[in-house]
Amino acid sequence: MGGLAATLGAVGLTPFELAAQRGQRGAAAGGAAAKPDGPPKDPQVEYEKMAKLANNENPYGPSEAVMKAMNDAWKYANRYGYPDGGIRDAIAEHHGVKPENIILAAGSGEILKLVDDVYLPDHKIVVGMDPTYGSVYQYTTNSKAKAIKVALKKDYTADIDAMIQETKLHSRDVGLVYLCNPNNPTGNIVNKADIKKLLNSIPEEIPVLIDEAYHHFVDNPNYETSIPYVLEGRRVIVARTFSKIAALAGMRLGFAIAPKEMVGEMGPFALSSISSVVKYGGVAALKDTAYEAKMKAMNKQLRDRTTAELKQLGWETIPSDANFFMVNLKTDMGPIQTEFQKRNVLVGRRFSPMDNWLRVSVGSDDEMKRFVTVFKEIFPNGPDAKKPTTSAGGI
Amino acid sequence: MGGLAATLGAVGLTPFELAAQRGQRGAAAGGAAAKPDGPPKDPQVEYEKMAKLANNENPYGPSEAVMKAMNDAWKYANRYGYPDGGIRDAIAEHHGVKPENIILAAGSGEILKLVDDVYLPDHKIVVGMDPTYGSVYQYTTNSKAKAIKVALKKDYTADIDAMIQETKLHSRDVGLVYLCNPNNPTGNIVNKADIKKLLNSIPEEIPVLIDEAYHHFVDNPNYETSIPYVLEGRRVIVARTFSKIAALAGMRLGFAIAPKEMVGEMGPFALSSISSVVKYGGVAALKDTAYEAKMKAMNKQLRDRTTAELKQLGWETIPSDANFFMVNLKTDMGPIQTEFQKRNVLVGRRFSPMDNWLRVSVGSDDEMKRFVTVFKEIFPNGPDAKKPTTSAGGI
Repeated sequence: MGGLAATLGAVGLTPFELAAQRGQRGAAAGGAAAKPDGPPKDPQVEYEKMAKLANNENPYGPSEAVMKAMNDAWKYANRYGYPDGGIRDAIAEHHGVKPENIILAAGSGEILKLVDDVYLPDHKIVVGMDPTYGSVYQYTTNSKAKAIKVALKKDYTADIDAMIQETKLHSRDVGLVYLCNPNNPTGNIVNKADIKKLLNSIPEEIPVLIDEAYHHFVDNPNYETSIPYVLEGRRVIVARTFSKIAALAGMRLGFAIAPKEMVGEMGPFALSSISSVVKYGGVAALKDTAYEAKMKAMNKQLRDRTTAELKQLGWETIPSDANFFMVNLKTDMGPIQTEFQKRNVLVGRRFSPMDNWLRVSVGSDDEMKRFVTVFKEIFPNGPDAKKPTTSAGGI
Repeated sequence: MGGLAATLGAVGLTPFELAAQRGQRGAAAGGAAAKPDGPPKDPQVEYEKMAKLANNENPYGPSEAVMKAMNDAWKYANRYGYPDGGIRDAIAEHHGVKPENIILAAGSGEILKLVDDVYLPDHKIVVGMDPTYGSVYQYTTNSKAKAIKVALKKDYTADIDAMIQETKLHSRDVGLVYLCNPNNPTGNIVNKADIKKLLNSIPEEIPVLIDEAYHHFVDNPNYETSIPYVLEGRRVIVARTFSKIAALAGMRLGFAIAPKEMVGEMGPFALSSISSVVKYGGVAALKDTAYEAKMKAMNKQLRDRTTAELKQLGWETIPSDANFFMVNLKTDMGPIQTEFQKRNVLVGRRFSPMDNWLRVSVGSDDEMKRFVTVFKEIFPNGPDAKKPTTSAGGI
């Protein structure tokens, strides 16, 4: 280990920890927000106070190996044409596909926009779950395509039979079927038999996008990745991201695995606007399987502990295979989200039609303890009380 | 100065220089390319050998203040929702507009895609120069819109009268007029009187995108930014980037300044996929006016010295106000580009119909000396010789 890494090693901190420490002291750049009833507040200082359980982020940050790789890539900060660390080949090799099956994106969000550009022109239809990750539906609205949103079953899992029915009924106009697996916001999986059934039941020319952003957290024998369907030549696009298990959400790197012909269809619409440093971070993240295993284990432990605590208090949660879960508040989540925020815990957002359910991301040990403490504070009488305790002033 | 910056300061290197040094030693990640007639080569080592004059990059890298700001923002590498350093407000204030006039993008390239999404649906027409920066035309092809490419005048400047004529002739179908100012690849400006004439002559509802990526290098009394037209409420979009003067090409940050209603039209199509660290880098870059002035002066000195040397050898160049220039090779540029590459100098690419012209980016002092040396080697007898010296084997 040489140079910067050695220097940082000498003080016992990774670059990530070092930067975070400085941030907690509020030393970095950033504007100050004026507040009518007090002195201006530093947004970075305010942010650091919060338990951050609203965005399904990895609370631990990228691994040391990833931080080193990104710091080593600063030399390309000013370049367009530079060696990219072999990111495409590394992804292909890691997933047992060919480089021609990979399309790189600035986060998997770009994949969700690409499918709209290519497969959902004016008047075409996307069929998906409701609720699910909403970006595809938003882009669809932009491009004047339409969405058929299929309600979840009573156990909050995907209603594959209804999705098949809607797809076949409108097959001439369906441009895309969208599945998020595990689903966001419910955290549960679409089981492998259901995916097989879907693919075997709808017209084979209809593209199916399977968003596996939370793949790495799953520990469930009924789940499997849909990458093998790509290898079979099915018109399946599997979206993946470095934002979750690899903790690179702020650095924007994702990709899709798809048949060569579909990569060719989507490629011209890709922005190719991925930062030079995160390409190196991504290559390092794929190699750092020990960190990945650690992240998965810590997430599972804290998620299961927290949902067990809620269950003990009498609350219903949806069994989750992701780094977030939903709890049934039995009242509209809006005011409760505000109560949490007043107590420096960020949770939510709203996922209609599940308006009584709160999505909670799995943060650090400390953050999950704070969440449970505040939860008990807001609901001192448990789920059967008439009303939660809400306050006007916060704490 | 504390923490990381102090540590780096102690060894007398910026993080950028430090990382670049490590890169030259080939220590960082990256695959090795096999070569049929030799041992595998490290793409990073090969890249470092090159004089990089092909991509209009800033050879000096981001300023120390920008590097510090980016390193301080690593703590947000794992976040989606984080304080963004006030980048939108900082850009607005710096340019004398309101935050509602700003649309952020992952490089100004995203702006060029956004205008296609919004203003160039199927069968619409974009009117622009030929040659110019080709991205808008490429996106137009993707979306099945059409391009009317207006040839430059004999002095290689924009033919504004012809552009007005084409726009008026097809006014019902023109979705956008595109100007790159200074123009890429020619490096010359569209003078302020011509822009005024264009805006006063075409139907006022037609959006005009003015790409000012190279704005900061211009030193010409006939040039002015088109931002004032936005303030007047004209349907003008001014695109800017942090890729050039601020040397952040690899980090992907740009923006557009446009009337509020146009920001509203384009906003839903923006990916919002900008890295957390570069938002902080951008804020720091806007403040670092001393570095900007230094970059501008160094570019001008090396550009003017190099073109003067070429002129003395009898070669014609187009007077440039940018960080690149064109030289008339009097022969097809393709084989010459290859000859340069064999000698470790990256120049070009092809900009048809100007196939006899070579675009040369302004690099460092050393790179420009290497360029002139190699130029003389390829053309030992000057511009009037029948044929340049080409070699099969390289050196």
